[in-house]
Amino acid sequence: MQRYVLKISYDGANYSGFQIQKDKVTIQGELESALKQVLKSDISIVASGRTDAGVSAICQVCHFDCNEDINEHRTLSYLNAILPKDIRVLEIDKCSSDFHARYSSKQKTYEYYFYCGMQNAVYERFATQIGLNVNIEAMGEACKYFEGEHDFSSFCASNTEVKDKVRIVYLCSIVDLGGGLYKLVITGNGFLYNMVRIIMGTLVDVGYGKLQCEKLKDVIESKSRDQAGKTMPSKGLVLKNVEY
Amino acid sequence: MQRYVLKISYDGANYSGFQIQKDKVTIQGELESALKQVLKSDISIVASGRTDAGVSAICQVCHFDCNEDINEHRTLSYLNAILPKDIRVLEIDKCSSDFHARYSSKQKTYEYYFYCGMQNAVYERFATQIGLNVNIEAMGEACKYFEGEHDFSSFCASNTEVKDKVRIVYLCSIVDLGGGLYKLVITGNGFLYNMVRIIMGTLVDVGYGKLQCEKLKDVIESKSRDQAGKTMPSKGLVLKNVEY
Repeated sequence: MQRYVLKISYDGANYSGFQIQKDKVTIQGELESALKQVLKSDISIVASGRTDAGVSAICQVCHFDCNEDINEHRTLSYLNAILPKDIRVLEIDKCSSDFHARYSSKQKTYEYYFYCGMQNAVYERFATQIGLNVNIEAMGEACKYFEGEHDFSSFCASNTEVKDKVRIVYLCSIVDLGGGLYKLVITGNGFLYNMVRIIMGTLVDVGYGKLQCEKLKDVIESKSRDQAGKTMPSKGLVLKNVEY
Repeated sequence: MQRYVLKISYDGANYSGFQIQKDKVTIQGELESALKQVLKSDISIVASGRTDAGVSAICQVCHFDCNEDINEHRTLSYLNAILPKDIRVLEIDKCSSDFHARYSSKQKTYEYYFYCGMQNAVYERFATQIGLNVNIEAMGEACKYFEGEHDFSSFCASNTEVKDKVRIVYLCSIVDLGGGLYKLVITGNGFLYNMVRIIMGTLVDVGYGKLQCEKLKDVIESKSRDQAGKTMPSKGLVLKNVEY
């Protein structure tokens, strides 16, 4: 048995998320079906994490096991020929059987694209619109409160089974991309369900002046979902990369 | 007669360019048809310039004349309700009859998005892939040769009727957006047909080492289209803004 690491990118717009589901078009479903066609055997893939419906990935990392040695280069080409254009395989490499796409991951980076001003046809392709008069500077200041080791219970969808909600955020900052377009960049050792989208919603509350920066410490310490902002739409969210 | 300035954004992917054409879906066609529906009269719009099929605009500027005073705010809302989602009106304002969207423009900024590495599903939405081993530093250096006043005949599609091909480029530079994604930003007092896409194609030749930076002066001075690089695909090109 040989384990392989598979790096992929996808535009999540037309998929019901990563995880395979009956009667739904998913990234995992498309990948496993393409792998079956190419390798002539049933392959299960394990990703670093499951992204939600509408979430994209610049580089998602997965692993799979295969009974026989494969030609990585040829398999990559075959897969990209079979897969829909909005799922692209970036890399296939042999790896140790110790490697686990989910459990071996050390840190992940997500980006959330958003813009201020009137609805814009170019930005709507990949970013979420947030009103006209938003205090971006205050949002940038607020980002600092998320950095460090915290119990992120306030920023986790309530329907989760994960017990330990302590995570370390190494970096949280807003990058001005010009023309009213911005991205939130957040790197952490792991993320809870909807964590980035809820952090983004909380930052938007700060931007609107509905929440003061200094109150963020209390919001975190409350460990209560209803103290944080709303869950922002999936569209602006992109998994940038996973480090091992 | 009252003149109005109209600022719009569009995703050019699904249109045969800006200019109205019989039996083709164009930005101008959609806009004029929506204006007719809202204002109950035939309106002709004039843009700062016509963008090609597949080219998008973050902010394109147009003007139109109307026999009667309109309620700008209400017209904007009606237009955005009628127009397809990939064309958005950003602003409508009264302006002087001296104002001309094309002839009054002082400068324009275009952006061309491109990326290096394997084909990526996220970047493919708006950027053009250029090979794996590209010398981005050399491309950045090459940009400087385009700045200033030059006869840009080498960088103009041959099927153009424009006589005077002298233009001033105020700024030409490459911005590293991270993760292998880049944009060329170019600001000038005007652009010839396909000029940005040919400049981009020439920069790619420099990136591949097919053309030395120092040769660019000769390419410009040759005033000959076949000395420059190929015309890059329209997909990566965005009209960022127009200044008056």
